[in-house]
Amino acid sequence: MINCESYLAAVRKQSPLILHITNSVTINDCANALICTGASPVMSNCTTDSIELAKTADALLLNIGTVNEYQLNQMVTTAKTAQNQNIPIILDPVGAGASAYRTDAAKNLMKYASVIKGNAGEIAALSGISGKTRGVDSINTSTDITTTADSLARKSGSIIIVSGKVDYITDGAQYFCVSNGDVMMSRISGTGCMASSVCAAFAAVNNTDLISACAAAMTYFGIAGETACKNAAGPGTFKAAFFDALANFKSDDFAKAKIQGGECK
Amino acid sequence: MINCESYLAAVRKQSPLILHITNSVTINDCANALICTGASPVMSNCTTDSIELAKTADALLLNIGTVNEYQLNQMVTTAKTAQNQNIPIILDPVGAGASAYRTDAAKNLMKYASVIKGNAGEIAALSGISGKTRGVDSINTSTDITTTADSLARKSGSIIIVSGKVDYITDGAQYFCVSNGDVMMSRISGTGCMASSVCAAFAAVNNTDLISACAAAMTYFGIAGETACKNAAGPGTFKAAFFDALANFKSDDFAKAKIQGGECK
Amino acid sequence: MINCESYLAAVRKQSPLILHITNSVTINDCANALICTGASPVMSNCTTDSIELAKTADALLLNIGTVNEYQLNQMVTTAKTAQNQNIPIILDPVGAGASAYRTDAAKNLMKYASVIKGNAGEIAALSGISGKTRGVDSINTSTDITTTADSLARKSGSIIIVSGKVDYITDGAQYFCVSNGDVMMSRISGTGCMASSVCAAFAAVNNTDLISACAAAMTYFGIAGETACKNAAGPGTFKAAFFDALANFKSDDFAKAKIQGGECK
Repeated sequence: MINCESYLAAVRKQSPLILHITNSVTINDCANALICTGASPVMSNCTTDSIELAKTADALLLNIGTVNEYQLNQMVTTAKTAQNQNIPIILDPVGAGASAYRTDAAKNLMKYASVIKGNAGEIAALSGISGKTRGVDSINTSTDITTTADSLARKSGSIIIVSGKVDYITDGAQYFCVSNGDVMMSRISGTGCMASSVCAAFAAVNNTDLISACAAAMTYFGIAGETACKNAAGPGTFKAAFFDALANFKSDDFAKAKIQGGECK
Repeated sequence: MINCESYLAAVRKQSPLILHITNSVTINDCANALICTGASPVMSNCTTDSIELAKTADALLLNIGTVNEYQLNQMVTTAKTAQNQNIPIILDPVGAGASAYRTDAAKNLMKYASVIKGNAGEIAALSGISGKTRGVDSINTSTDITTTADSLARKSGSIIIVSGKVDYITDGAQYFCVSNGDVMMSRISGTGCMASSVCAAFAAVNNTDLISACAAAMTYFGIAGETACKNAAGPGTFKAAFFDALANFKSDDFAKAKIQGGECK
Repeated sequence: MINCESYLAAVRKQSPLILHITNSVTINDCANALICTGASPVMSNCTTDSIELAKTADALLLNIGTVNEYQLNQMVTTAKTAQNQNIPIILDPVGAGASAYRTDAAKNLMKYASVIKGNAGEIAALSGISGKTRGVDSINTSTDITTTADSLARKSGSIIIVSGKVDYITDGAQYFCVSNGDVMMSRISGTGCMASSVCAAFAAVNNTDLISACAAAMTYFGIAGETACKNAAGPGTFKAAFFDALANFKSDDFAKAKIQGGECK
């Protein structure tokens, strides 16, 4: 359905430079996930610096996990430069819905985003559906999140990725479902953040078909999680094994891909 | 003596939301330790955000390991909200005694704290005994730290935890000693910070008997360290094994508990 | 050639206090690398605090990986105190050359530095040779970086360390080449930062012969990397094994040292 191999190969060949303005909790995880994938991360906490770096970067990753006034301004300013450079901008709205501050920050940044990746609660919050996020965790809900995501994609013009047991990727017209991954991935901090960074790397080198690039990225990420589980005795050893799995990923591993897709309702 | 199992079970059942305002060194470790324990961490570097989050959080953790002017103000403001919410506030006075700035910050925050957990040097500094901290490490001293801690508990109205080879937990009237743990735990960064975060989780769901909750938390933490040592070839593999041990902890493991207690002198 | 054992033994005996003003990406790695080596790290994000801490520290480590306006001012102010204390100041100019902001920050700090450790692109940027850094990675170049480094050492009065497949350490008159290490070390984030921190620890206790101390540090670090590779299935397990190797390092391991040296051209 999607030639995942070619998307990963492009990352490894081109080693795209992914500029991060991100949270202080998982910043190291994101750097390592990208290096293991084959991309080149650079992180900045300074507006002057990140505006400059955006001019040579291949994608911009915005993650609001510990956003404050300074960083939000940095994100907006740098996103404008990135837009002028025509590079993809990936937004991870961590904790949107848990506080009005985060919801507003995410909505403010949404207009710059090529891709928005969140859990169901965060995507619901961006869609104006409240009360589905507790801290940075999504609360299970009976809302049909896929319809919400399709609608948000059409309204925003962004690719929407809803991560979960099944990842749902939509541009409002077309969708993909990726069923790879393992529950162990939810037992460590940083899985969602790393997935967004990896999507940024795939998007950076496949800018003409962003939805396929994101679906390939989530598939790669999920399969690596499955591989890592086999070498893990718990969340700590899983995390080390996960970086190994990202780095040691072979084209053949995509045979485990569980992707479905179709047209949105 | 303490029904440790029931305290841990409550954490795992209720998955309390633990709001962190903490240092940038070990913030990821604290997030992972809490997820492995069964709690839900959320970190904030923004005053507006953390005041809001405090209204839905089950405990507030303040760690001054890299505190500065902005963060200290954020801590004070958020602590006031947390007090109004009647949720436990746990203070880790990292490096108190090593600089007047840290000592003053810790003393400023002490009045909001339900629980204060530090090493001997830090607790001595908060008690007005100087010169016992070098960087973030306690210097061995002949001072009877248990008497100092009892006195600080009575004066402050907080539970005081002095971590070390034997952890000492006191409210000034009653004390517990926990002898679990392993020297390997001092060979990685973040052990003390993670212990404080785990105490916050236990306190969050056992707010009516904080001293027992803290003793149970330190026991859980120490036994997990002992388990992890058996699967470690050094500090790096220990750290991964430690997260595994926190996550894989079974009720039966509390059979290894080494808790003593009694009335303070 | 260099009595590496004695330099490491001094670190382990004296446990020097290494004050860090560093980036938020690898700050935890630097703390752990130093603890495993036998030194005592302390990190500060506050000017008032770090000025005070500099008065009891044994070395100051400045790393500009996520520097911004506040932190740059903190670094300059604290460096002045460190100079008055006559403790070594180690500068890691992460990303110099990738943005004018970083290049200028590094040049601003260079005048305080006893030791500057960067990759070839960063050292070239500090020498006024542009266009050799992309993000935080050095771009291969035909420039003879050793000549550039010798010249920078003479001009700045600092020891210059160019890290790479072969590490080159020079004071402009004398040089050492260290060929230890493994390509796996470039597959994780933080290797360069940790190496700088370890150099700071060795420099702290061997202040009278900084160039030998740095060569010994890079040798220790490289050999530990070689040892860790044998216990690694990829970058994630390598990282854990690397901390083990730093901590478990025995004097005999220096038999694997590959150091050459001589007079600069």
